Amino acid sequence: MPTRRQFLGSAALAATALTPSVNRAAEFPTIIPQKAAPKKLKLSFKPYTLELKHAFNVAVYSRTTTPVVLTQVEYTEGKTKVVGYGEASMPPYLGETQESVMKFLSQVDLGKYENPFDLETILSDADALMPDNTAAKASLDIALHDVVGKLMGQPLYNLWGYNPAKTPNTTFTIGIDKPEVVREKMKETTPFNIIKVKIGQQDSDRMMIETVRSMTDKPLVADANQGWKDKQYALDTIYWLKEQGVQFIEQPLPKDMVDENAWITERSPIPVITDEAVKRLPQILKAKDVYHGINIKLMKCTGVREANKMITLARALGMKVMIGCMTETSCAITAAAHLTPMVDWADLDGALLIKNDCFKGMTVQNGKITLPTRPGLGIVPV
Amino acid sequence: MPTRRQFLGSAALAATALTPSVNRAAEFPTIIPQKAAPKKLKLSFKPYTLELKHAFNVAVYSRTTTPVVLTQVEYTEGKTKVVGYGEASMPPYLGETQESVMKFLSQVDLGKYENPFDLETILSDADALMPDNTAAKASLDIALHDVVGKLMGQPLYNLWGYNPAKTPNTTFTIGIDKPEVVREKMKETTPFNIIKVKIGQQDSDRMMIETVRSMTDKPLVADANQGWKDKQYALDTIYWLKEQGVQFIEQPLPKDMVDENAWITERSPIPVITDEAVKRLPQILKAKDVYHGINIKLMKCTGVREANKMITLARALGMKVMIGCMTETSCAITAAAHLTPMVDWADLDGALLIKNDCFKGMTVQNGKITLPTRPGLGIVPV
Repeated sequence: MPTRRQFLGSAALAATALTPSVNRAAEFPTIIPQKAAPKKLKLSFKPYTLELKHAFNVAVYSRTTTPVVLTQVEYTEGKTKVVGYGEASMPPYLGETQESVMKFLSQVDLGKYENPFDLETILSDADALMPDNTAAKASLDIALHDVVGKLMGQPLYNLWGYNPAKTPNTTFTIGIDKPEVVREKMKETTPFNIIKVKIGQQDSDRMMIETVRSMTDKPLVADANQGWKDKQYALDTIYWLKEQGVQFIEQPLPKDMVDENAWITERSPIPVITDEAVKRLPQILKAKDVYHGINIKLMKCTGVREANKMITLARALGMKVMIGCMTETSCAITAAAHLTPMVDWADLDGALLIKNDCFKGMTVQNGKITLPTRPGLGIVPV
Repeated sequence: MPTRRQFLGSAALAATALTPSVNRAAEFPTIIPQKAAPKKLKLSFKPYTLELKHAFNVAVYSRTTTPVVLTQVEYTEGKTKVVGYGEASMPPYLGETQESVMKFLSQVDLGKYENPFDLETILSDADALMPDNTAAKASLDIALHDVVGKLMGQPLYNLWGYNPAKTPNTTFTIGIDKPEVVREKMKETTPFNIIKVKIGQQDSDRMMIETVRSMTDKPLVADANQGWKDKQYALDTIYWLKEQGVQFIEQPLPKDMVDENAWITERSPIPVITDEAVKRLPQILKAKDVYHGINIKLMKCTGVREANKMITLARALGMKVMIGCMTETSCAITAAAHLTPMVDWADLDGALLIKNDCFKGMTVQNGKITLPTRPGLGIVPV
C-alpha cells in the first residue's frame, strides 16, 4: 500500500501530466501540486563490527565479534540542526543481522513527520511496519530520543524526571572459561563493586563461582542463560550460590519450562530474574507468576520508550527490575544508563568489553554508573 | 526530624557561636560556615473559590461553589526565572479542604532541591510527607511540570511524546435536575459532540436520559456515581441505556460492592468504567477484574506524573482509560488535557462550568480538546 507521502507525490505528478494548459484544467478534478515541504527529519545508518576484547562464552555459544548498525537522525528546521545517534546490536542468537536491520530502517520514512517530539506516533508507526526487528526499532528510538533531548537542551534523565545521583553500580561480566582465563579476566574487575558470573554448563558452575570467589569478596550475581535443564539441580545450585554471596540468579531453566521456572522461583532464597522470557511489555504479565523480576534490554524491547513503560508495569506488579545490554557501543549503553535511576540492578558493561567503541558516554566511577550531563544521550563520537 | 537544610543551618549557626576568635578554632571540630546557596525553587499558594454557573447535582449531593488552592512554583537560576502554575480542587466529598491543602503545602520544602527536573525525587518525597492529600500533591505536580516544560521550551505533550492532534472530544456534563432545567442546560451543549448525563437516583434515571435524548442525537455517556444499589436494576438500565445511544456507564454501584460491580461488568453490553474504586496506580490491579476501564482524575491520583503511569498500567492490562476532572480552573484542566492523546474518552468540562476561571488554557474546538502550544501547561492567567 502506498504511504500518504507516496500517494501525494504521485497525485502531484499526475496533476502535472494531466494539466498541460490552463484551458484544460476545468476538465479534471482540481489538484494543485504543492511545493513539497522540506523534510525535517532524516534517517541514515551504516554497519559496524564490534571487536571483543575476549571471546565471549555463555552456556550456548561463543563469539569474538558482534555486528551492529549505527544510525543517525538529523533534524533540521531553519537554522536549527541537530544530530541524534542510535545503535542496533545483533548478537547472532536473536535473529537480526546487519542486512535485516538496514532493510527495516530503509522502510522508515521519517520525512513524513513534522513534529520530532511526537515519539508515540513515530515509534508506533515504525513498530507496525514489520514484526520483530526489535534491535532495528531500538536504533531508531535511541536516535530520536537523542534528537529531542538535544532540542530541549536536557539530558534524557531530566526529560524523564530521574535523579542521576540514583544510578546503581553496574555489574561486570565474566564469561564461562577455564580457571586460568577467569583469573586473568578478574584483573579487569577492579573498578567494579559487583560481578556477574556466567554459569549454566552444570559441569563448570561451581568452578566458575569458586574461581571468582577465590579472588574477590565483592557481591556476585549469576546468569545461567537457560543452561540448566533440571529444576532440582537448579534449586540446589541456587541455594549454594546464595552461600557464595550471589545476589540473584538470571534465567535458570529454558524459558519454555514455565512451570519448572515458577517452581524454582517459589522456593529460591534469592530473586530469580528472567531475561529470555520477557522481551517486550506484554510478556511481563505472564512472567509475573514465574519470576521475581525482569531483565530489560533495549535491543529486545525496541528502545527506551518501551523500556520506561516496562519499568512502570513491572513496578506496579511488584517485580524487581534490572537493565542489561548486548555487546554495544557507548551509544546504546548510555541510552540504557539513563534509565538506571529507576532499577534495582544494572548490567551495562557492554561497551567495556569491546576494543573499538566509537562513542564516549556513560562512565563507571567507583563502580557506579555515571551519566553524562550533556543534552540528549550526552554521547560524543570518538 | 530536622531536614538536611535545617541541620546545615543550625550547624552553621553553632559554628559561629562557638568560634568567637581565630585562636579558639583549633579547639573545636572545624565547621566552616557556608554561605547558604540561593534557593532555586520556591512554592507559594493561595485559596480561591470557584463559582459554579449552575448548582451541581449528582446522586449524593448538590453544591454551588468549589474551594480550590492555586499554587505557584518559581524557579530562579541566574537570570532565568520561570513561574509554574498548579491547582488543587477540593469537592467536599473527597476529604480535603483549603486548610488541609495549605497545611500540606507549607510542609513541602522545595528549597532543598537543586534540580527542578528531578520530579521522581521531589514528588516521591512530597508523597511520603503525609498519606492522602492527593489534591495538594497534584497542585505541586502540576506546577512543577509547568516549570520543567517552560525550562525545556516545550508544551507538556512534547515532553511526553504525545501527538496533540490525537486528542479526543470532551464530554459536557448535565447534572441531575428537573426536566425544564435540563432542557435549559442543553443549550450549552451545542459546541460538544458527546454529552455526559448524571444519573443514579433511580426514579429520575430514565427521565434524565429521555429529556436529553429528546433534544439531541449526539452520543451520550452516563455516570451513576455509585447511586444504584441493586445489580439487576443496574444491568437492566444499562441495557436500556445502550438502546439510547449511551457509550459507557460510569460507576454503577458503590465501589465496595465489588462482586456486584464485577457481575454487571461481565454482562454489560457497554463498557463499565470505575471512578470511585481507583484513585491511584496500585488500585488498578484490583479493578482489572471488576471493571472494563478507569477514570483517571489528577486530584485523586496526585498529578500528571502518576496519571501517565496509570495510563501505561491500564493499557498493559487491556483496560479502557478515560480522564475526568473535578470543578477546576483551566490550570488543572489543561494539565489533564495534555494526557488525552493517550486515552479513549475525556471528560474535561470542569472549567466550563465555572464563572470565574482565572486562566486561559485548553479550548474546545468543534467539540475536540485543543491543546495550547506554549511551553509547559501553556496556560495564561487572566
